[in-house]
Amino acid sequence: MITINENYLKLKAGYLFPEIGRRTRAFQEAHPDAHIIRLGIGDVTLPLAPAIIEAFHKAVDEMAQKPTFRGYGPEQGYEFLARAVIENDFQPRGVELAPEEIFISDGSKCDTGNLQEIFGLDNTVAVTDPVYPVYIDTNVMAGRTGPGDEQGCYEGIVYLACTPQNNFTPAPPEQQVDLIYLCYPNNPTGAVATRVALREWVDYARRRRAIILFDAAYEAFITEPEVPHSIYEIPGAREVAIEFRSFSKMAGFTGTRCALTVVPQELKAFTADGREIQVNPIWHRRQTTKFNGVSYPVQAAAAVVYTEEGKKQVRSQIDYYMENARLIRTALADMGYRVYGGVNAPYIWLQTPDGVGSWQFFDQLLQQAHVVGTPGAGFGPAGEGFFRLSAFGDRENIQTALTRIRKM
Amino acid sequence: MITINENYLKLKAGYLFPEIGRRTRAFQEAHPDAHIIRLGIGDVTLPLAPAIIEAFHKAVDEMAQKPTFRGYGPEQGYEFLARAVIENDFQPRGVELAPEEIFISDGSKCDTGNLQEIFGLDNTVAVTDPVYPVYIDTNVMAGRTGPGDEQGCYEGIVYLACTPQNNFTPAPPEQQVDLIYLCYPNNPTGAVATRVALREWVDYARRRRAIILFDAAYEAFITEPEVPHSIYEIPGAREVAIEFRSFSKMAGFTGTRCALTVVPQELKAFTADGREIQVNPIWHRRQTTKFNGVSYPVQAAAAVVYTEEGKKQVRSQIDYYMENARLIRTALADMGYRVYGGVNAPYIWLQTPDGVGSWQFFDQLLQQAHVVGTPGAGFGPAGEGFFRLSAFGDRENIQTALTRIRKM
Repeated sequence: MITINENYLKLKAGYLFPEIGRRTRAFQEAHPDAHIIRLGIGDVTLPLAPAIIEAFHKAVDEMAQKPTFRGYGPEQGYEFLARAVIENDFQPRGVELAPEEIFISDGSKCDTGNLQEIFGLDNTVAVTDPVYPVYIDTNVMAGRTGPGDEQGCYEGIVYLACTPQNNFTPAPPEQQVDLIYLCYPNNPTGAVATRVALREWVDYARRRRAIILFDAAYEAFITEPEVPHSIYEIPGAREVAIEFRSFSKMAGFTGTRCALTVVPQELKAFTADGREIQVNPIWHRRQTTKFNGVSYPVQAAAAVVYTEEGKKQVRSQIDYYMENARLIRTALADMGYRVYGGVNAPYIWLQTPDGVGSWQFFDQLLQQAHVVGTPGAGFGPAGEGFFRLSAFGDRENIQTALTRIRKM
Repeated sequence: MITINENYLKLKAGYLFPEIGRRTRAFQEAHPDAHIIRLGIGDVTLPLAPAIIEAFHKAVDEMAQKPTFRGYGPEQGYEFLARAVIENDFQPRGVELAPEEIFISDGSKCDTGNLQEIFGLDNTVAVTDPVYPVYIDTNVMAGRTGPGDEQGCYEGIVYLACTPQNNFTPAPPEQQVDLIYLCYPNNPTGAVATRVALREWVDYARRRRAIILFDAAYEAFITEPEVPHSIYEIPGAREVAIEFRSFSKMAGFTGTRCALTVVPQELKAFTADGREIQVNPIWHRRQTTKFNGVSYPVQAAAAVVYTEEGKKQVRSQIDYYMENARLIRTALADMGYRVYGGVNAPYIWLQTPDGVGSWQFFDQLLQQAHVVGTPGAGFGPAGEGFFRLSAFGDRENIQTALTRIRKM
């Protein structure tokens, strides 16, 4: 008899965004004339930059000619892209990486979801709360947790509450945790971790022989010069941290699909009897066995982000989104909302007024302003009473949305 | 202390193709003037067909304009592609599928590798031997096996020998197995399963409440009209089988990346206490949580395979490869080799002469004819004494390779 992986049966409800989609569709069907503005899911709206389009076309043309056609590429990605990433995203910040430490992939969702596979089931997982649900759900599926409770918290996971009091950057816990998910600039709160805060985490991981999975998908949105872009800017991090980067938000690749994961050679995990195992070759084995690399034209298109022209064009898109963030942040503050984020991240995290529940606020906003946001509770119990607005929308739509919210 | 998934430490040597690559590179370095012809890895060599290129460009242009730009798509793929697949690949063979039963992905390697995740660790896995190593390695990683022996066989996996005596299509075993990997047309042997043989498997799976993972990546290469293209042509298969399809070999997408998996609504697995669980929503949950869909321009390019023009162009590429297969097959038979496959599949499976070991034959062929093939033993113990040649090469190279082998 074929048995199912019963861990899947522990999962609570649907994934957050499908539920938002369901409520939004239901409202739209009931009110076909309503012009709904979507500031919910963090999806980009600007088209791919001209330099990216040009390179994409060129690579497609290469696929049309026998001498330049490319079949299977290296599963871990083409070296031309890994080198461009190293030289442009890391070296200028004093971080040296080798191409063998870079794994190009089709998305940070896949990478942050898959990475837990290579670690033991006995590890204790820590997440910040609120949190990107993928970190938790994939650990539930793997069997690293007990059942979930009514708030959506799973037994065995250590939740570190992010609150205005700790600037949404909790300190390492007293207890032992082994696999730590950190995301800065943070989704959903828009908070960043200072150098001091990250150093505390790196020191904790070194002392406790833990590993940090550092999701830096939003690093391109950092505007304040003192904020670290990579965890490897912290001394010793190469021994304890894996970092995720993505072209999704930085270059508008949410529908084009390209990302990467850094696994330094120094990174070690351990067998039950304490033997050191180098993690990089294990991830390499996982990727070469279960993955076949990213589409060549997509990798060629991604590499253009690092040319002079590409950099300028991508930067102007990021500036556009960050100006949206500023507009949302200042308008909401002006209306009397308590708002966080939006300075180094494309997300605004607002406190719901009068302690209204965050799904209730979702429904209010949808029904009264025809604006879709993301209820904080969808990201974890500490997100209750908060609400996420994304700055990735169209400027005009955002201005309309703000006018409608003001009228509410 | 962070522990590693110790199942990874059970894995034998590297993945087959990296080892072939290593030996080939070493030979090339020692003999820089040798013109090596690669008939090893099953990688296509013809460029993407003109209709595919045209659609690819068109979709890239859509990504350049705000009104047609696409961000996140459905994780399970665009319905336009799922519908094209159903209407062209399945309906003409009498198989009805709903779009919700199709999951578009970036490769059958990923899908065949990931699918085991949703089943319990206590299932007994059966594979044909020789076999595509991904089926086994991913089960080793998950912890469904004991250690491997010197032949590369893992404790707990049931290996079903494929031999000339059983036409490389073993019958279901006497014992209970729960998760069965079948691949027809077969990689590496080039064999096909008759309707009768497949019916035996479907009946077995229904009787034993097992699930068949049916890899049909090479179905487009079938030339004999009586051979089934889909396991769903067998009555009752919808209740017990998942099927994998790929654009890699059929349309030259090895470097472009697109594939799909069919999970029928009727398919059930069971909890330990015997409760029925529908598999489709579980795989949907897995994909929406750990995957973000295939690049939109790639899906648009894949859909063109089903237009009149696309069909004709893709068919002519397949015919080209199958003419290569015929040339290899007849030439080798003429030289006195025992050859199998190459009629409904782009692989020729030859018996090594005089009982020579298959890695030894690999080295001989490389050193004496400068031809790279794939040693049968790399696919499992029953592959020892056999050797795989791929028909995906360039016609001229194949003719040169055959002339050189004749001289050996």
